[in-house]
Amino acid sequence: MNKIKFNKEGLVPVIIQDYKDKDVLMLAYMNKKAFNLTLKTGKVHFYSRSRKKIWLKGEKSKHFQIVKGIYFDCDFDTILIKVMQVGKAACHEGYRSCFHRKLNNNKITVVGKKIFNPEEVYK
Amino acid sequence: MNKIKFNKEGLVPVIIQDYKDKDVLMLAYMNKKAFNLTLKTGKVHFYSRSRKKIWLKGEKSKHFQIVKGIYFDCDFDTILIKVMQVGKAACHEGYRSCFHRKLNNNKITVVGKKIFNPEEVYK
Repeated sequence: MNKIKFNKEGLVPVIIQDYKDKDVLMLAYMNKKAFNLTLKTGKVHFYSRSRKKIWLKGEKSKHFQIVKGIYFDCDFDTILIKVMQVGKAACHEGYRSCFHRKLNNNKITVVGKKIFNPEEVYK
Repeated sequence: MNKIKFNKEGLVPVIIQDYKDKDVLMLAYMNKKAFNLTLKTGKVHFYSRSRKKIWLKGEKSKHFQIVKGIYFDCDFDTILIKVMQVGKAACHEGYRSCFHRKLNNNKITVVGKKIFNPEEVYK
């Protein structure tokens, strides 16, 4: 996969979508190593920009993302991965999707319900 | 919307998803001005990194993206917008989604059919 265009920081944005109900669960970044680990293991790996290291999604929570399909956009600078989300929730705050804040009349409201309690999962 | 965290280049990645069938159509970037124009007009505007200017999606093709919902992730550094895609296709290559290239056994195959002929639309 030499076609992928990583940015100046060596990263590419990756959209994660549920392969069945098509909810967009999150967006995170991969470097080449994270992409190759994802291919090899069938479990999504990212590169954490804050922790500056490879991050197996679910390593603490066990809420792994099992790869069902990998797609590239026209410019090969964004990746879409369809996954089976173990534990149903992708967000470290306990929600199904990280996109659980909606803009309504210039105010932000939380949509979607909590699936797990982060304090129990990440203790 | 002072909560949005724009990156060093003043941009934020925006995922565009069809509000009905939930297909992920594309990812592009907004600066503050593009975001405000999107809010004001109800039509998606981006910032083109290659052309270095604001870009009303559909300005040439008339394939506008009508805003149906705006969502933020936990960190406010990614936006998800659900849209009604005019003309059914978002990709400048004539496909419904920019993510029409799928990885299969280490080979890339085009999935999805062409909805319009780019040479006719962008002439």
